[in-house]
Amino acid sequence: MPASPIRKLVPFAEEAKRKGRKVYHLNIGQPDIPTPPAALEAVKNISTPVIEYSHSAGNESYRKKLAAFYQKAGFDVDHTEILITTGGSEAISFALQATADVGDEIIVPEPFYANYYGFSIAAGINVVPVKSDIDHGFALPPVEEFEKLITPKTRGILICSPNNPTGYLYSKEEIELLGKLVKKHDLYLYTDEAYREFCYDGNQHFSPMQIKGLESNVILIDSVSKRYSSCGVRIGALVTKNKDVISAALKFAQARLSPPSFGQILGEAAIDTPPAYFEEVYREYIGRRDFLVSALNRMEGVKCPLPKGAFYAIAQLPVDDTDKFAQWLLSDFEYQNQTVMVAPASGFYSNPSLGKKEVRIAYVLKTEDLKKAMECLERALKVYPGRTIA
Amino acid sequence: MPASPIRKLVPFAEEAKRKGRKVYHLNIGQPDIPTPPAALEAVKNISTPVIEYSHSAGNESYRKKLAAFYQKAGFDVDHTEILITTGGSEAISFALQATADVGDEIIVPEPFYANYYGFSIAAGINVVPVKSDIDHGFALPPVEEFEKLITPKTRGILICSPNNPTGYLYSKEEIELLGKLVKKHDLYLYTDEAYREFCYDGNQHFSPMQIKGLESNVILIDSVSKRYSSCGVRIGALVTKNKDVISAALKFAQARLSPPSFGQILGEAAIDTPPAYFEEVYREYIGRRDFLVSALNRMEGVKCPLPKGAFYAIAQLPVDDTDKFAQWLLSDFEYQNQTVMVAPASGFYSNPSLGKKEVRIAYVLKTEDLKKAMECLERALKVYPGRTIA
Repeated sequence: MPASPIRKLVPFAEEAKRKGRKVYHLNIGQPDIPTPPAALEAVKNISTPVIEYSHSAGNESYRKKLAAFYQKAGFDVDHTEILITTGGSEAISFALQATADVGDEIIVPEPFYANYYGFSIAAGINVVPVKSDIDHGFALPPVEEFEKLITPKTRGILICSPNNPTGYLYSKEEIELLGKLVKKHDLYLYTDEAYREFCYDGNQHFSPMQIKGLESNVILIDSVSKRYSSCGVRIGALVTKNKDVISAALKFAQARLSPPSFGQILGEAAIDTPPAYFEEVYREYIGRRDFLVSALNRMEGVKCPLPKGAFYAIAQLPVDDTDKFAQWLLSDFEYQNQTVMVAPASGFYSNPSLGKKEVRIAYVLKTEDLKKAMECLERALKVYPGRTIA
Repeated sequence: MPASPIRKLVPFAEEAKRKGRKVYHLNIGQPDIPTPPAALEAVKNISTPVIEYSHSAGNESYRKKLAAFYQKAGFDVDHTEILITTGGSEAISFALQATADVGDEIIVPEPFYANYYGFSIAAGINVVPVKSDIDHGFALPPVEEFEKLITPKTRGILICSPNNPTGYLYSKEEIELLGKLVKKHDLYLYTDEAYREFCYDGNQHFSPMQIKGLESNVILIDSVSKRYSSCGVRIGALVTKNKDVISAALKFAQARLSPPSFGQILGEAAIDTPPAYFEEVYREYIGRRDFLVSALNRMEGVKCPLPKGAFYAIAQLPVDDTDKFAQWLLSDFEYQNQTVMVAPASGFYSNPSLGKKEVRIAYVLKTEDLKKAMECLERALKVYPGRTIA
C-alpha cells in the first residue's frame, strides 16, 4: 500500500513543531467540538465489573435504539438489519468483503476518501474512478460516465455524501439517477453517510436508503465519529435490508468477535443528544465554512467551490505542485512563527497527478485560528518559489 | 465463510433458555473474573472533553509502558516495535496481511482457534494444518510433519501457546525446534500469546521472542482480553523487531485510523495491576481445572488430558458425533431443569470429521457451577441415544 501524501508530511510537521513553530492543522478531520457530555457520562457511570465481549453484531439495546433513530430519518430498518462495527472503517471493509471477491471492481467518484483505496487493496478489490470536477463544484459526474465503466466484475458504486474530501452534497436527483443505474445493472450502492448531519444552507440530505425498490441494492455505512465528535471510540454501523449481505457481513464480524464495549455504551447514549447540541455545532461549522471559503476565494489565483456539507473544502491553488507546496509550508515557511498543514489532493485521486493543484482543507479549528491560518496561507502563496502567478 | 459449529448451536441455547432452562456456558472463552478495578477506574476518570483519534499505532505512552512490560518478560523490544491493535483479532489480520499475499499458505497445528481460519479467508490465505493428537496431550507434532508441508507459497507457521482450544503449553524445546525450522526456511513464526499468564504446575511460558537470532522471523500477537479479563475493550498488540513487517502493518493500521481510545486507557492502566490479582486468578483457575479434568476423567469412556495452560480443555466423549450431542444437550436434554453448552471440536479442525468425538470445555465458571455442569454432562452421557458405550 503506498504511503499517503499526508503521512509523508508528518515528519515535516513534527520538525516544524520542534523548532517552536505553531502549526495550524487543516489536514485532518478530527473535530475540536466536545463529545456530548451525557454520552461521556454514560461511559463513566458503567457499573459492570467485567468488560465482556458483546454480541458480534453489537448490543441489541443499541441496535434497537439505532433502528428507531434511522426510522426517524425515513429509513425503514429494524435492528436485525444493523451491524455495529469498529468505526465506519470496518463497515466499509465488511461491506466490500461481504459483496465482492478478489479481482472484483467498485466504481468510485474521485476525488475520494483515501482509505477507500486501502480497504479495497486489503480485500483484493480494484477501485475504478470516475472524475468529478472542481469547475462543477464536484457534482456527480454524468451517469453515463459510470455506466461505461461497468464490467462483469463490477460489484457496485461507492459514494460519500456529504463528501469527504469535497464537501459536496449529492442532490435527491443525483441519488435517484444512481439508484436507477444500480437497479438496471443489479449492482450494490455503498453509501457512506458519516457526515449526514452536516448539511448547510437549507439543503436536505437524501439517502439511497429512502428509495423504494432499492432495498436489496443499498448498503449504508455509518459512523458516530463525526456526528458526536467521538472519533476515538471506533463505532460505526453497516445497515442493509439485503439479508444475504447482512448475513455474510456477520460472519466477518464473528471472526473479530465484537465491536468495542465502551464505544457502544457511548454511541447508544449519544442517540439522546438534544437538538441544541447539533444547532450549536451547525452554527459553529457554518460560520467557519463561510469565513474560510470567502477568505480563500479572495486570495489571488485561488478557487474554492462552496461546500454544501461535511467540514471539508477543496481549493485550487496557484502553485506548481501541492505536494511540494504543503511540504514547503512546513519545512521552509513561517509567518510570525506560524504555519499551516494542508492535505495535498493527490492522495484523493487514483491518478495523483490530477490533484497537483488542489488541497483539502478541514475547517475543524475555531474561526479565530482559521483566520490566522488563512493569513499564513495568503502570505505563503505570495512568496512560494513554485507559485504560478507573477 | 462457513458458520462455526458453536454459532449453529446458539438458537438452540436461546430456545432452551426460553423454556426456563438454566444453561451452563462452557462453550466460550469469556472469563467471569473481574476486570482489574483500577484499570476500570482509569476509564471512569478520563477528563478529556473530546474522544479523539489516537496515533494509528496506539498512544505512545501506552506503547512505552508495554515495551517495559515485555522487557520484564525477557523480550528485547521498544515502543517502535509495537502496534496497538483492535483486539488480538486485528493483530492476527495485520500480521497475515503484512506478510502474505493472496494464495500464500500458513501452517497451523490443529485443532486451532477457529477464527484463524476466518482471518486467513479474509486475507485470501490458505491454512495448511498439521494434526496434533489427544493421545499425546496435543503436544507439538514432530517438526518433520511441518517441514514436509513447506512449499514456495508457505509464509510461516502460526502457533498459540498456551493453546486455545487444547490448553497445551509448548515447552522451550518445542519452541526452539520450531525456531530452527523457520530460520532454516526463512519463514515467519506467528506466536499468539493471548493466554501467556495462564500457565500451571510450575511450568514457565517460553516465547519465540526470547530466541536470539530469530528477531526477523517472529511476530508476536498479544491481547489484553484474557490477561485482564477485559475482552470487550478490544485491545491487542502486534510486536515484532522486523522493521519491514511493522511498517507494512502500520499501513493497514493507518487505513482503519486508530484503535479504540477507551480500551487503550484501560490497557495502559492495567499494566500496573498488582501481582495479588494474578495470584488470585491463578488460584481460581487451577482449582477449576483440577476439578474439571478429574471430573471428566472419572466419567465412563471420557478422556481429557491435563491442560498446562489457558482455560480450555479438550475432552474425548463416548458419543457418535459431538455436533449432534452438543445440539441434543440443548434441545432434548435437561437434568433438574439444567443443561450444558459445549463447543464441538469439529470447528477447530480443518477437516471437521477429525473433531467428531471431541469437545472443547472452557472453565470460565465458578467451581460450584462447574460441578453442576459436570453432573449434567455425566447424566447426559448416560442417556444420550448416540452414546457409543453400553
